[in-house]
Amino acid sequence: MADGSDDIQALVGLMARLPGLGPRSARRIVLHLIRKRAGQMSQLAGLLDRVAVNSRECVTCGNITDRDECAICTDPARATGELCVVQDVADLWAMERGRAFGGRYHVLGGTLSALDEIGPDDLGIPALIDRVEREKIREVILALNATVDGQTTAHYIADALADSGAAVTVLAQGVPIGGELDYLDDGTISAALRARRRL
Amino acid sequence: MADGSDDIQALVGLMARLPGLGPRSARRIVLHLIRKRAGQMSQLAGLLDRVAVNSRECVTCGNITDRDECAICTDPARATGELCVVQDVADLWAMERGRAFGGRYHVLGGTLSALDEIGPDDLGIPALIDRVEREKIREVILALNATVDGQTTAHYIADALADSGAAVTVLAQGVPIGGELDYLDDGTISAALRARRRL
Repeated sequence: MADGSDDIQALVGLMARLPGLGPRSARRIVLHLIRKRAGQMSQLAGLLDRVAVNSRECVTCGNITDRDECAICTDPARATGELCVVQDVADLWAMERGRAFGGRYHVLGGTLSALDEIGPDDLGIPALIDRVEREKIREVILALNATVDGQTTAHYIADALADSGAAVTVLAQGVPIGGELDYLDDGTISAALRARRRL
Repeated sequence: MADGSDDIQALVGLMARLPGLGPRSARRIVLHLIRKRAGQMSQLAGLLDRVAVNSRECVTCGNITDRDECAICTDPARATGELCVVQDVADLWAMERGRAFGGRYHVLGGTLSALDEIGPDDLGIPALIDRVEREKIREVILALNATVDGQTTAHYIADALADSGAAVTVLAQGVPIGGELDYLDDGTISAALRARRRL
């Protein structure tokens, strides 16, 4: 091959298929790595291999972990009776970065979707209801995306949990911190106005 | 760690330091890879490791290769007496994608820069002059960036090769293919006007 060796071309091709990358950014990354190969590249290869071999879903919550149960599910300090339902692991990570939630999680792995034929059983919603009863959860916090599918899923779960005795709550909607009204969509402004509170 | 295992966090951290990526895109890529780990992730780890171990600079031109001399330098069909001087390997790859050049390359690895204290010896310009004489090069094409440092380097090399007997040429400057005048900078329009030709 004219563009470096076949391995380099294969590496660029594989990188270019990663989300958010394309041929140009993949080439840039591969050339950057080759220049620093002594350190970063072998380290990256080793970590990728270890994570590929070891990572799996937590049997309880669906978080990604290298053990059977993740660090959150096995942390006794987090047995608060609060369960936060998220769409996927990226959302769980985002909640954890916020450092505001001290309970445990349940990862759905998607949202209900008639178009994609994803029903309650595909998302493990029956398992969630079992878990709420078994662990005597007091509050289920639905931290789902503010999209049509996310909100449909939230309403479905709230209905399914109506007889469980657990309180079902959702995240507040409103103006994001640092948000400027002029740049917000009309829906957000309306939601923030309806949910206004005394200062 | 709350965000997955320590290995996953280390992988995200390493990915986030790659050019063009940040914490958010690195998390997205790592989660994508974990979901597909059976295939892509091990393959990526294996390729990174192989490229880290095998890739090195071609001893003749500076291209990246997995042998002592790259495929371009060892291809007898490319011994055309034309030598294209580029700033770095990314530029060599870009020229090859254009498929318009059938000769060989010389990678400088940078440009002359008084600010960064990069002089002719740091770029191997004496070695380039030796090579032009040794290989009896007829034409040296300076395919350097149209920046101040790139053009300074081009003029320096042209002066140094003045007595070599090789013709020294540069890439044409003008309107890029598909370019719209309204979106071009003034310098490009002026250059294209000065270099106008009969239709």
